[in-house]
Amino acid sequence: MGNLDMNPSFVLRAVQDVAFEDRPVPKLRDAYDVLVHVGQTGICGSDVHYWQRGRIGDFVLNSPIILGHESSGTVVECGDKVKNVKVGQRVAIETPPWDGTLAKYYTVASDFVYPIPDHMTLEEGAMVEPTAVAVQISKTAEVKANQTIVVFGCGPIGVLCQAVAKAYGAKKVIGVDVVQSRLEFAKSFGADGTYLPPKPEQGTDPVQHSEKVAELIKKEFDLGEGPDVVIEATGAEPCIQAGVNLTKKGGIYCQAGMGKENVVFPITTACIRALTIKGSIRYTTGVYPAAVDLVASGKVDVKRLITNRFKFEEAEKAFELVKSGRSDVLKVVIEGVQS
Amino acid sequence: MGNLDMNPSFVLRAVQDVAFEDRPVPKLRDAYDVLVHVGQTGICGSDVHYWQRGRIGDFVLNSPIILGHESSGTVVECGDKVKNVKVGQRVAIETPPWDGTLAKYYTVASDFVYPIPDHMTLEEGAMVEPTAVAVQISKTAEVKANQTIVVFGCGPIGVLCQAVAKAYGAKKVIGVDVVQSRLEFAKSFGADGTYLPPKPEQGTDPVQHSEKVAELIKKEFDLGEGPDVVIEATGAEPCIQAGVNLTKKGGIYCQAGMGKENVVFPITTACIRALTIKGSIRYTTGVYPAAVDLVASGKVDVKRLITNRFKFEEAEKAFELVKSGRSDVLKVVIEGVQS
Amino acid sequence: MGNLDMNPSFVLRAVQDVAFEDRPVPKLRDAYDVLVHVGQTGICGSDVHYWQRGRIGDFVLNSPIILGHESSGTVVECGDKVKNVKVGQRVAIETPPWDGTLAKYYTVASDFVYPIPDHMTLEEGAMVEPTAVAVQISKTAEVKANQTIVVFGCGPIGVLCQAVAKAYGAKKVIGVDVVQSRLEFAKSFGADGTYLPPKPEQGTDPVQHSEKVAELIKKEFDLGEGPDVVIEATGAEPCIQAGVNLTKKGGIYCQAGMGKENVVFPITTACIRALTIKGSIRYTTGVYPAAVDLVASGKVDVKRLITNRFKFEEAEKAFELVKSGRSDVLKVVIEGVQS
Amino acid sequence: MGNLDMNPSFVLRAVQDVAFEDRPVPKLRDAYDVLVHVGQTGICGSDVHYWQRGRIGDFVLNSPIILGHESSGTVVECGDKVKNVKVGQRVAIETPPWDGTLAKYYTVASDFVYPIPDHMTLEEGAMVEPTAVAVQISKTAEVKANQTIVVFGCGPIGVLCQAVAKAYGAKKVIGVDVVQSRLEFAKSFGADGTYLPPKPEQGTDPVQHSEKVAELIKKEFDLGEGPDVVIEATGAEPCIQAGVNLTKKGGIYCQAGMGKENVVFPITTACIRALTIKGSIRYTTGVYPAAVDLVASGKVDVKRLITNRFKFEEAEKAFELVKSGRSDVLKVVIEGVQS
Repeated sequence: MGNLDMNPSFVLRAVQDVAFEDRPVPKLRDAYDVLVHVGQTGICGSDVHYWQRGRIGDFVLNSPIILGHESSGTVVECGDKVKNVKVGQRVAIETPPWDGTLAKYYTVASDFVYPIPDHMTLEEGAMVEPTAVAVQISKTAEVKANQTIVVFGCGPIGVLCQAVAKAYGAKKVIGVDVVQSRLEFAKSFGADGTYLPPKPEQGTDPVQHSEKVAELIKKEFDLGEGPDVVIEATGAEPCIQAGVNLTKKGGIYCQAGMGKENVVFPITTACIRALTIKGSIRYTTGVYPAAVDLVASGKVDVKRLITNRFKFEEAEKAFELVKSGRSDVLKVVIEGVQS
Repeated sequence: MGNLDMNPSFVLRAVQDVAFEDRPVPKLRDAYDVLVHVGQTGICGSDVHYWQRGRIGDFVLNSPIILGHESSGTVVECGDKVKNVKVGQRVAIETPPWDGTLAKYYTVASDFVYPIPDHMTLEEGAMVEPTAVAVQISKTAEVKANQTIVVFGCGPIGVLCQAVAKAYGAKKVIGVDVVQSRLEFAKSFGADGTYLPPKPEQGTDPVQHSEKVAELIKKEFDLGEGPDVVIEATGAEPCIQAGVNLTKKGGIYCQAGMGKENVVFPITTACIRALTIKGSIRYTTGVYPAAVDLVASGKVDVKRLITNRFKFEEAEKAFELVKSGRSDVLKVVIEGVQS
Repeated sequence: MGNLDMNPSFVLRAVQDVAFEDRPVPKLRDAYDVLVHVGQTGICGSDVHYWQRGRIGDFVLNSPIILGHESSGTVVECGDKVKNVKVGQRVAIETPPWDGTLAKYYTVASDFVYPIPDHMTLEEGAMVEPTAVAVQISKTAEVKANQTIVVFGCGPIGVLCQAVAKAYGAKKVIGVDVVQSRLEFAKSFGADGTYLPPKPEQGTDPVQHSEKVAELIKKEFDLGEGPDVVIEATGAEPCIQAGVNLTKKGGIYCQAGMGKENVVFPITTACIRALTIKGSIRYTTGVYPAAVDLVASGKVDVKRLITNRFKFEEAEKAFELVKSGRSDVLKVVIEGVQS
Repeated sequence: MGNLDMNPSFVLRAVQDVAFEDRPVPKLRDAYDVLVHVGQTGICGSDVHYWQRGRIGDFVLNSPIILGHESSGTVVECGDKVKNVKVGQRVAIETPPWDGTLAKYYTVASDFVYPIPDHMTLEEGAMVEPTAVAVQISKTAEVKANQTIVVFGCGPIGVLCQAVAKAYGAKKVIGVDVVQSRLEFAKSFGADGTYLPPKPEQGTDPVQHSEKVAELIKKEFDLGEGPDVVIEATGAEPCIQAGVNLTKKGGIYCQAGMGKENVVFPITTACIRALTIKGSIRYTTGVYPAAVDLVASGKVDVKRLITNRFKFEEAEKAFELVKSGRSDVLKVVIEGVQS
């Protein structure tokens, strides 16, 4: 696979139909592009969702597409006008929302590659992307020092949000999840406390149950009238309802997870409490460099997230593992094709 | 009724049970209080709601209460430490959420009374309260000059929001309502354009219909990807759904009206569009003086809102009229008891 | 001069050395460019400054340059990928800071031209540029509805700032100048009140005099502890000192005018009063469309600013007039070369 | 000195005239007051300034006043309506700007005392006040995670600002001072790097020298176009000039130190760079609890600031030491009178 003319790629051909294809190496399209030899690629729930459903929000699978978007790599070719990186430099890649990175080589505008320091591994470089998602969520949620913050969800994005909040000087960060082992990881990673909400008793009205869960969390962690910020990173309807009920008067509730298109929503509570509810999606300017810095400085120890490693040839197996939703799997990474 | 020892009051004794009572004139409680002879009182939908249901959000009727909270009047007594007003001064009253103003006299901390200029009538003074509500909504919705704004609802609060937005330099303000005559009034009062949404065809999914309505409004008023700000002043579920779908990417949706406690809510759209959704309730510091100024300067011509006038003795009739929801009734005011 | 191959231009060859040159018509540089037949061009103090000194801040005259940057015109050629305008469309031009617009034709990226409506004249179109400067200053100064604002300077930028503040719903706008006729114009244009500060008595310390002027202004216009916002649009040291002393505790002082590089500045007052001091320079995204709208809607009646009109051939005379600083001259415009 | 009727106090009778007086113990003035037995009191440059000059800004010594305002202590009496503390509780005291705390007992509204946890010493409790000043400065300067920040001054307030910035997730914090030993302390306390600026060569223009210093700092610490935020905590004119020249385009310069009333200020640079310049003075709501939390959590290790300790009887000696300005003296504390 050492041929620069060949570009082995992991392609989603149609819904639930993946295959390895040998595509041509993508050429630089203009003088600002770079060609990157992909080093490591993490798999995200949204990749699996796309694989299984062929659609995420406005992005609909119309033609075969290369999967993967959490990658690091090494620059192997630079357009004439590229200034921020050089050949040989190791980089984290911010992926525009089309052809992905699960290939030997990837061509992208140089604005989308960020040098990583020598002491950072390519695995850590691949984890810059989910860290950037968490940085963006924190930015949307206006996370500030000295705040109390509750994060629903202790999967990779949830625990990263918790770690980012701590790195930003949060006073108290609480993680909520329904899986005990995830709570334990969260506690060791960034959360000051964790909570496993009780299941509703049979016949209980779901919204009323969510109010009860909100009260239990406030009491358990001495949160007074509620946390300054709630980040909802699951997309699950009961969490959305509990999260809105939990947020303090005038506080911020940030919707980061995505599930059902429409949910039963406590709009009157949101109104009476003068809440600010914000949706967070993808990242904005300045977020990627911040994520590189958080990983490079060790403030967010992303290598602890990686629970499973696969070779490029095992990509489908890796996807199957993420799809399984096993509670002991946090982050799965796929090694790139060696030169 | 000229006796300063007697205070005729319009009292809500229990749900749907009102009566005139002759209460003692409330005394100043400390050196910062003032006693006001009530001049004019507007009636608001929330007064009627309270009368009919005995509850608004956290405010529950536990004991008899005087109704009314949109009032102006004349100061007749001042505590020793009062500095902002003098005896004889005409004022708009900001009402704390307990005993109301439908009485001959009303005692309140002087911080809650705002002098009105000589050229402003007591009727206009009573309209400062709903204007302050609209100013607060505009503040919550972060209404700024040069923006495009859609307001759902063309009742008093809706049209006041539209007029405030224009006074703040909005580029384009659209009012939406299901009553044609209200749209006509809105157009003459503050809106640049108005819209009467079509009813859903039988069997249509309500959320899908709301998406269609949102598209129709964008097209009709050349709003591109949607208005910068949507203010929802009805509380009706279809309007909430249409409003969220209408707001442009990164825009602000402000929930000002209150209806059902929980609604089916397009949470994924809110998330993908990175909306900011804010609840507005009551007013904050600085809002009342701004409202006095908007009325005094003629920027918001509140006297046009008043469609029906009653004597104090006719208070119940006035409430019945508001309850009727007649489309030709905008604002009903009750004259205070003469000295 | 009807030849599309010829481009008569008014060129600054060296400091204080201007000439008419017949240059080639600039070609479109890429598919996003447009060629504009220049219609009207206003002259600004900074144009004259550049003509006389060959330098404004970081912009230094190194080679001959076409003067002029406040222009409107008609699109005569469009690159293939231009979408926002068509041939024949009348536009306001936002000028990047290099070769200017005092020529028959001007080539620019289509992002920098903004269609103006049919009812707007080309003279008004040329006035969009100074209006945009005023919009930017208002943005920097965070001008909001219901505020009190004092503007030092009643030249074109000063009175435009005053008019923009009124259009944005300001409660009270005061203009300050040392020329009585300018104050009268300001009063008729946007200011609610105007002020001519007294000269310092001989031997008075300038900073102490500025404190006195600040007190006089507060008293004259009933500004209590000072205005919410001060905009300094002269650059004169005494105005800077008076402006800082005038701003209320926690208020915003915006430096828009430029004069001496360094001034004696009341830093302790700025500190104790917890002021926010902001420098405003040029314009940011979204400002130009706002300025077009303010002119098109009639909220800012820019044609009243134009006091003197010249033919293209008289350009130097026009510059001389602006240089003279005559108090009856507000805005001077130069008509473009006719086709 | 165990008598609750006696209140030994360290009093500033007139400029440079201090004495111990035996005053009556101040009584609770209303039901919301508490009486505190003062435990430890830090001395601040402003205390010494007041002692020597009898004036700080608007605060002028008109009658004898007790000195001191950085104190902790133990609550010994509570008014009936006090809810936030109990007798026996150890507290940090936020001091309103009149009679100070260098006495055995101090009476204050309970809103101004903040419980400190058991593991915090009274010395650390006294250091909450300067920490709160640094928190306020950081708030004024809008210090955010991932920023680069330069602080002029490595005295107590300077190094506290540096430590707070790090606790808030700053990417890089640089301390500047003219004393080498202070730089060393700063490096060990919160700064990532430190800088000792060169003296100007004879005959150099001071403003030009400040531009040179700014360039040197940018280069030394790889700050590109300058830091996001500059905090000036010395009040010295050359630092003010260098600081303004150092701040990046669109960045924030915060004036926290106070020196000369008026300084030569690079106003054109501030304007062209579109800087935001803010004055910081005292603290606002929410700052004290944040400071208690920063000390209690160990994020800011205030006990390292304390270099010298004195008994109450030695108060004048303590003031003399602070006045001496010895470079090895950071924070001097005075123990309260024992019961």
